[in-house]
Amino acid sequence: MSKYISVPSERVRVTGGFWRTRQDVNRDVTAKAVYDRFTSSHRFDALSCRKEGREFEPHIFWDSDVAKWIEGAAYLLSEKRDAALEKLCDSAIADIIANQAEDGYFNSYYLTVSPEARFTKRDDHELYCAGHLIEAAVAYASATGKKEFLQAMRRYADLIYKIFYVDRSAAFVTCGHPEIELALFRLADAVGDEKYAELALYFLNERGNNDKDIQSFYWSDKYYQSDRPLREVTEAVGHAVRAGYIYSAMADAARHFGDSEYEAACKRVFENITNRKMYVTGGMGSTNNGEAFTVDYDLPNDTGYAETCAAISLAYFARRMLLLKPDRRYADVAERVIYNGALCGVSLDGDKFFYSNTLEIDPRVCVEGIRPYYPALERAKEFWCSCCPPNILRFIASITEGFYTYNDDVLFIHQFAESEANVRGATVIQKTSYPCDGVISLSIRGDFKTAAIRIPGWCETFTFNAPYTLLDGYAYIDIPSDGEIKINFDMPVRLVEANPAVACDVGKAAVTRGPLVYCLEGKDNGGALYSLFLKEDSKFAMTDNDEYGVPVLVTEGLRRLSSDALYSTLNYRFEPSKLTFIPYFAYANRGADEMTVWVRTLPGVLEI
Amino acid sequence: MSKYISVPSERVRVTGGFWRTRQDVNRDVTAKAVYDRFTSSHRFDALSCRKEGREFEPHIFWDSDVAKWIEGAAYLLSEKRDAALEKLCDSAIADIIANQAEDGYFNSYYLTVSPEARFTKRDDHELYCAGHLIEAAVAYASATGKKEFLQAMRRYADLIYKIFYVDRSAAFVTCGHPEIELALFRLADAVGDEKYAELALYFLNERGNNDKDIQSFYWSDKYYQSDRPLREVTEAVGHAVRAGYIYSAMADAARHFGDSEYEAACKRVFENITNRKMYVTGGMGSTNNGEAFTVDYDLPNDTGYAETCAAISLAYFARRMLLLKPDRRYADVAERVIYNGALCGVSLDGDKFFYSNTLEIDPRVCVEGIRPYYPALERAKEFWCSCCPPNILRFIASITEGFYTYNDDVLFIHQFAESEANVRGATVIQKTSYPCDGVISLSIRGDFKTAAIRIPGWCETFTFNAPYTLLDGYAYIDIPSDGEIKINFDMPVRLVEANPAVACDVGKAAVTRGPLVYCLEGKDNGGALYSLFLKEDSKFAMTDNDEYGVPVLVTEGLRRLSSDALYSTLNYRFEPSKLTFIPYFAYANRGADEMTVWVRTLPGVLEI
Repeated sequence: MSKYISVPSERVRVTGGFWRTRQDVNRDVTAKAVYDRFTSSHRFDALSCRKEGREFEPHIFWDSDVAKWIEGAAYLLSEKRDAALEKLCDSAIADIIANQAEDGYFNSYYLTVSPEARFTKRDDHELYCAGHLIEAAVAYASATGKKEFLQAMRRYADLIYKIFYVDRSAAFVTCGHPEIELALFRLADAVGDEKYAELALYFLNERGNNDKDIQSFYWSDKYYQSDRPLREVTEAVGHAVRAGYIYSAMADAARHFGDSEYEAACKRVFENITNRKMYVTGGMGSTNNGEAFTVDYDLPNDTGYAETCAAISLAYFARRMLLLKPDRRYADVAERVIYNGALCGVSLDGDKFFYSNTLEIDPRVCVEGIRPYYPALERAKEFWCSCCPPNILRFIASITEGFYTYNDDVLFIHQFAESEANVRGATVIQKTSYPCDGVISLSIRGDFKTAAIRIPGWCETFTFNAPYTLLDGYAYIDIPSDGEIKINFDMPVRLVEANPAVACDVGKAAVTRGPLVYCLEGKDNGGALYSLFLKEDSKFAMTDNDEYGVPVLVTEGLRRLSSDALYSTLNYRFEPSKLTFIPYFAYANRGADEMTVWVRTLPGVLEI
Repeated sequence: MSKYISVPSERVRVTGGFWRTRQDVNRDVTAKAVYDRFTSSHRFDALSCRKEGREFEPHIFWDSDVAKWIEGAAYLLSEKRDAALEKLCDSAIADIIANQAEDGYFNSYYLTVSPEARFTKRDDHELYCAGHLIEAAVAYASATGKKEFLQAMRRYADLIYKIFYVDRSAAFVTCGHPEIELALFRLADAVGDEKYAELALYFLNERGNNDKDIQSFYWSDKYYQSDRPLREVTEAVGHAVRAGYIYSAMADAARHFGDSEYEAACKRVFENITNRKMYVTGGMGSTNNGEAFTVDYDLPNDTGYAETCAAISLAYFARRMLLLKPDRRYADVAERVIYNGALCGVSLDGDKFFYSNTLEIDPRVCVEGIRPYYPALERAKEFWCSCCPPNILRFIASITEGFYTYNDDVLFIHQFAESEANVRGATVIQKTSYPCDGVISLSIRGDFKTAAIRIPGWCETFTFNAPYTLLDGYAYIDIPSDGEIKINFDMPVRLVEANPAVACDVGKAAVTRGPLVYCLEGKDNGGALYSLFLKEDSKFAMTDNDEYGVPVLVTEGLRRLSSDALYSTLNYRFEPSKLTFIPYFAYANRGADEMTVWVRTLPGVLEI
C-alpha cells in the first residue's frame, strides 16, 4: 500500500481569489448549462430506458456524459448542499436504479436498442460508461451520504467482475475506451473491497496481452493502447484521452499493489508525454486523426488537437504519480493543465466549450477547403460528442483534488490557492492571491511535524520564513510552533522556449507568468500576429483584469515592416508595436479572432 | 493583332551549358522512360480502340498523356531528327487516325467504353484531350513536315466547332478542364484559319457565363474557373493547372483579338498569382484539396501542392503576357518557374518525377496518420494520374520557347542560355555560362536595329558595353555595327524574404543566386534543419558541381542549442554550423531526406 495519502477535493475548500470565481461560474452557470443541454438532447430521458414512443435513440456513450454531470454535481453538493441540484441528481439516479437490469447491468443504449448484444463490442464504451457511473456513485455517496446509487453501481461492478473475470464470458477482455479501471480502484478504496482492485488489475494486465480483443472498428491497436502489455509501455500512443485514463489506472495499480513494474511503466510514459508530447499549455494529442498522440516533438500549434478531456486526464495521471513519489514534476504538470489546457476548455461566462484547444488561429486559413483540419474559432454551446463539458464541470468542481497529500509525518503542499483544508484532522489555511502573485501565508494547525512545499518548476527564486531543505523540488520545513509559514515565489514574466526539436516553435517564445501561459489575440494587437516579434530582454507591465482574475501583460515588441512585394531582398525592418498578452485560458471570449501562444523572438545579444 | 511576335522553340537551339545537359537527359532518358511507362500502362494500346480481349480500360485522360508525349517528341525531332523516335510517334499517330470516327471524333475512352455518351459530361476531359491532341499535331507537323496528324486533328476541331458552336448540341458548353482553348488559338495560328480562334473565344466567353455547365462532379464552380465570366476575373481560383491553362488562353485572346478586357483580366490575375499566390519557386496551388489555389498569402511550405503542371502552366501564361507587353515581370516569372518549380519535377537522371513539389520536408511527420496531407519524399517512376511526366518532357524539350520576341524594329531578349537562334532571318548567338554566372556575349546578325534585353528582377547591378535606356525592366540598346553586346549581370547570393503576410515564412529567408532558388537537405547539414539559422550578413562560398550544373553554396550559419527539456527559459544559445545549400531543383536526388527552402534568420543590426 502507498505511503502517501491523497486529500480528496471535498476536504479542501476554495475560500476566495481566482478559483473562487471560476468555481462560482462553474456552479452557477456551467452545471446548469450542461444539464439543460443534456435534457434537450434527451440524455436524461434515455436513463428511463423507455423505448415506446421516444423520438431519439441513445448513443453508446450518453450514460458517461450524464455520469460525469452527476459526479460534478456531487462535488458541488459536497461543498454546499443545494436542494434543487440534489433533486435533479436524485431524479436521474432514480431512473438509473429503476431501470437497472435484474443482474445489475445498466446501459441506456444496450438495454433499449440491442439488449441481446451486451458486452459483444469492444468499441462500444459499455465499461467506459460503467466506470463513469461508478465514479459518479462514489462521489455522490461521499457528498450526500445517500448510498443507493453506490449500492446499485456496486451491483453492476459485481456483474462485471463475474462476467469478465470469473466466467470470462464477454466477447472481449478489455474495453476499447479505458475508464472502468480507475473507477474500480476508486470503488475498491471507497467500499474497502479488494475484488474491484483485483478486477482493475486484471483489465490492466490483459490489455494488449490477449488475442480476444479484436478491434471491431478501424483504428489500430495503438489507438486503444493495446499494442503491447501495459507493463511494457515506453511511450504514449493512440487516442490521448484513453491514454490518459489507462496510464492513470496504471498509477493506481502501482500505488494500490505496490507494483514496481507499473510504477516504472508510468514513469516512462509520464516522462515521454511531458518531455516529448505535451503542449506548453498541458494539452496533449497532436492530431485530430484519432484524437491522438503522434511522434515525439510533433506539437503543431495550428492543427494540434489537445482535447480538453485529454488535458484533464493528464492532470489525473499527474496527481496519481504524486502518490507514488512526491516529485515536483508531477505537481508542475498538474498545475500547467489546471490553469491552461483544461481551463481553456470553458468560456469565462461558463456556458460554452472547446473540445479541442489550439495554440494558434489564423482565421485567413480557417475556412472550409483550405486546410484538411483547422481549429474551432469559438467555443460552442453544444457538441454531438459531449464528453468535454461535463468533464470540465467535474474537474473545476474538484479542482482542489491533489492540492495536498500526506504520510505519517509530512504534509505535502502541491498546489496554491486561497483555501481551507482539513487534512487528517489538521487545519490548513492558505492566504494568497495566487496565481496573481506568489506570496502565500500558510497556516497549519494539527499534528504534522513537517511541511513539504512544492517549489514550482517555473520559479527561479523564492524565500521562506523558516529554514528548509530541498528534495525533489519540495522545500521540507519543520512546521513552526505557531503553524505559520510565509512563502514568496518570485513571479516575473518568463519567456519560455521549446526544445528546438519542436520545429514549429524554433525562434519563438511563449510568454508565461507563474503557472499561466499567455497568448496574443488579434484585436489587442492590430492583427497579423505572425509579423510580430518579441525581444528576448522585453520588460513587461502588468494590468489587473477583473474578468480574467489575473493580470494582462504588456510590452514593447516589434512588427516586421512589409513592402508590397511578395518576395524581396531580405531587409530586417521593424516598427515598434505594443504587445498585449492575455491569459491563454481566456482566448476567444470576445468573438472569433486571430490568436497565438508562440511569438517570434529576437535575441538581445548573440552568444555563439 | 499583336505587335509582338513569339519565336518558337524550334528556332532557338541550346548549344551548351546548363540546358544542354538537361535537354540531353530529357531526350536520352525522360522521353524513353515516359514512353515505356505509357506502353506498360496500355496508354498507347488504348489508341487502337480495340475493345475485344483487352485487359485494361482506358481512362478519360489517357489521350492527353499520349498527346503530350508526342508533342514532346516533336520538339526533340525538330531539334534533331531521330528515326526510331519518329517511328514511335508515327505508330501512335497511325492508331489515332485509323480509329478516328467518321465525323472526326477521337477519344480512346469514349469510343470504346461509352460511345453513346460523347460530349455529355463536362468533367470528363474530352475537350482537354482534344486540345492536347491538337497541340501535338501542330508540333508534329512543324517538326517533321508530316501533315496527316494535323489534318486529322483539324477534322476533329471542325467537329467540335460544329457541335459546340454551330449546333450547340453538346450537353455542356465549356469543358471542365481547360486546354482546348489555347490549343485552338495555336491551331488557328498554325493553319491560318480564324474559325478556330473564334471557337476558342466562344469557349472563353461562355465560361462562367451560362447555365448549362452544371457540374457533374462535386467540386465548386471556382474549381473550374466557372464562378464568373472570365472577363471579370480578379483573382486566381480553383484547380491551379486548369487556372494556368485558361488564363493562358485569355492572354491568347487578348493578343489574337486585341481584346482589352481579356488583357485587363489577365493583368489582374497575373498580378494576383505572382504577388499573392506563388511560391518563391514559381510553384502555385497551395492545397492538395482540389490541387488548388486558396487565399492570398497562404503559401504553406510543408503542405503546399505546387504541382509540376501548374508551374508549367504559369510559364505558359507568363510567356503569353510578354506578347501583350514586354515587361520584365513576365519574363522573371517564366525564369523563376523554369529553373525551380518546373525543373524540380524531374530527377537529375531523368526518369523519376514529382507530381507536387513541396518546399519543406520533415520526415518525422511524413508518416501515415500523423498529418492529413504530407508531401512525397521522393520522385516516383509512375503515377496513375500521369499528367506531369509528359508535361515536363515537352516543357524541357521546348525550354527555349519565349526566349525571344520581336516587333518591327526591336528584338526582345527575355531569357539567357548558351544558344543560337534564327529570328526573322537574323542570327542571334548567346555565349554564356548562365545561370552559373551573369556574363553574356550576345551576337546579333540581321536587320534588327534595337535589342531590348531583360534586366532580371533578381539583378541589382549590371553593365553593358553600350549605352542603354531602361523601360519596363528592359535595357534598350542600339545594336552595334558588329552586332556584339556584352552583358554582365552581377549574380551574388541573395537572401530573399517573403511578404510578412506569408505567416510561415516570417523570420525566414530563401537563399537564391541569379534565377536559382536553393535549399538545405538534411544529409549535407547534420539534419534538424528547423534548428538552423542563417545570419543576415552571411558570406557564401561557391563550389562548382558537375551534377547540378550550377554551384553549391556554403556559409557559416548557426544551430540553436538544445537542452533536454521540452520547455525551458528562453536562452539564445547557438553553435556555429556550416550550411550547404543545393539548388532546389536538385533536392531528393540522393534518397529521401529532410529539406527546406526557407531557413530561419537572425538580423545583423536591428533597425527599428
